[in-house]
Amino acid sequence: MPKPSERIKVVVLGGGTGLSTLLRGLKKLPVDITAIVTVADDGGSSGRLREDYDIPPPGDVRNVIAALSDVEPLVEAMFQYRFNHSKDLEGHSLGNLMLAALTAITGDFGHAVSEMSRVLNINGKVLPAANQVVTLHAVYEDGSIVTGESKIPLVDKPIRSVMITPEDVQPLPETIQAIKKADLIVIGPGSLYTSILPNLLVPEIQQAIRESDALRVYMCNLMTQAGETEAYKASHHLQAILNHTAPDIIDVVLASDYDLPDQIMDQYSEEHAAPVVVDVEKIESLGVEVIKRDIAVIRNGSVRHNAEKVALWLVYEALSNKKIK
Amino acid sequence: MPKPSERIKVVVLGGGTGLSTLLRGLKKLPVDITAIVTVADDGGSSGRLREDYDIPPPGDVRNVIAALSDVEPLVEAMFQYRFNHSKDLEGHSLGNLMLAALTAITGDFGHAVSEMSRVLNINGKVLPAANQVVTLHAVYEDGSIVTGESKIPLVDKPIRSVMITPEDVQPLPETIQAIKKADLIVIGPGSLYTSILPNLLVPEIQQAIRESDALRVYMCNLMTQAGETEAYKASHHLQAILNHTAPDIIDVVLASDYDLPDQIMDQYSEEHAAPVVVDVEKIESLGVEVIKRDIAVIRNGSVRHNAEKVALWLVYEALSNKKIK
Repeated sequence: MPKPSERIKVVVLGGGTGLSTLLRGLKKLPVDITAIVTVADDGGSSGRLREDYDIPPPGDVRNVIAALSDVEPLVEAMFQYRFNHSKDLEGHSLGNLMLAALTAITGDFGHAVSEMSRVLNINGKVLPAANQVVTLHAVYEDGSIVTGESKIPLVDKPIRSVMITPEDVQPLPETIQAIKKADLIVIGPGSLYTSILPNLLVPEIQQAIRESDALRVYMCNLMTQAGETEAYKASHHLQAILNHTAPDIIDVVLASDYDLPDQIMDQYSEEHAAPVVVDVEKIESLGVEVIKRDIAVIRNGSVRHNAEKVALWLVYEALSNKKIK
Repeated sequence: MPKPSERIKVVVLGGGTGLSTLLRGLKKLPVDITAIVTVADDGGSSGRLREDYDIPPPGDVRNVIAALSDVEPLVEAMFQYRFNHSKDLEGHSLGNLMLAALTAITGDFGHAVSEMSRVLNINGKVLPAANQVVTLHAVYEDGSIVTGESKIPLVDKPIRSVMITPEDVQPLPETIQAIKKADLIVIGPGSLYTSILPNLLVPEIQQAIRESDALRVYMCNLMTQAGETEAYKASHHLQAILNHTAPDIIDVVLASDYDLPDQIMDQYSEEHAAPVVVDVEKIESLGVEVIKRDIAVIRNGSVRHNAEKVALWLVYEALSNKKIK
């Protein structure tokens, strides 16, 4: 097993379930992981804490810390516990409250995240994409604008673009350091407009990825999402990223090659979701390589990435990358 | 330093600030500590959690865990953090929420307390006096009855006695084991009717203390308390304990020998509180030894026990106790 200093350095950017799933696969491999996590959420427990305490929403960070943590199951269960049966606490996640308390005590969300990461004994590093409250706005094809991450998918109109305010939000210095040193940068999987792009819209993060010699992989979602990427093919996902950034930010799209059972197809179609069609030629015409692999599994009726296989493939490709330092 | 197996085994019973202060002194000495903590509280954050989740109130247990914990200051600060500026969370203590979550996950308050103790790396053992919700009732001298720990001192009438329901509440088996093995049992300091007596009213706890060969010390409060022990001398405190238990439950009363500065006296008299007068002969007439020592200090305008001195005195006396096993 390589020594820590020789380990492949992986930076993963995203938010939501997709990012956590991937990290649970990566953490079993001998790699150095840095997860850069969106802080544009404004719904649920996170949104209430953001509103009441003026702190970045802790929910995505919490899930990533849990995914990378190496503590007893009971401590992780406590961290992820969600209150119910209580007017006061209904819907709050205990880990969110712990991050809010640490932020109040230290006066700094980034510091709170690093302390929480230490207490939960995480394998890797978790960095919020910004150390401040960031607001996401969507411009729809009809020109209308909606503000607020949680509201954007509910409008159910085609999205033209998203923006964050403040526009010049600063990343943590460690975030840029990690990107500069990375051998492998993984963007996604996750909600395209509400989890992935908010990270890439932080100017210095985008710039650092563009300048990186790392292998830069976009892990395309397995399924379309209602209100966000309805009827999107893989190339549409990629095109949206390139439109918001630059043509030179992705080297490879990793897509899934699989057929879903009819029952799962029916279930997803009720949610206005369907498998993302992988239009290889169109992606290649954008100057990006595309690789299709059998990397999907069905767990509890949901289609998910097979985190172990994806992690192995990613690290293998990173080791094979001619650009490697 | 004696090996763990040769250490003096100390059991401390109480609740509130007094118990935590004493434990911060004891934990610096090479002794085995078991803290048996009242669960009769029903006010504040504890009371809301008790009401909403039907769990024993975690507040006193939380303070004792914090007092015995050996973690970085920031983790202890997080555990003791109290939310404000939020309609949802106003007044809730994060440690209480952590204990509530662990209780919900494990289905058992005692288990939650032991897990929390492990995470906070405590020096000693914390045991709730009962593993269920206990309700405290007071009978006043005029025969009226009030139910609810937090309401009892507010009535501002002389208390005749207190009762708990259910009357036959069971302690944890470890509690009785700890009392049986103890070399030193310390009762108090703390609110006589609302922190001390609820522990002694658990039948098996009371019985085990009466049968113990340990040195059994009642640490009398330094100051009287409005609504509970107004104008009580030390012998009145002791008499109340004996009335609720049996004449053979205390060996020694440790009382304070000091004069308060006028400024502090004035400040306390505004709260209808005054130094507890130590009426030595009256205590001795109850068959209990009384020892007066210079063990009070003034901290931030409040009179407190000097925990270091008290702890040293207690352990010294326990080592000198002829009854020692």
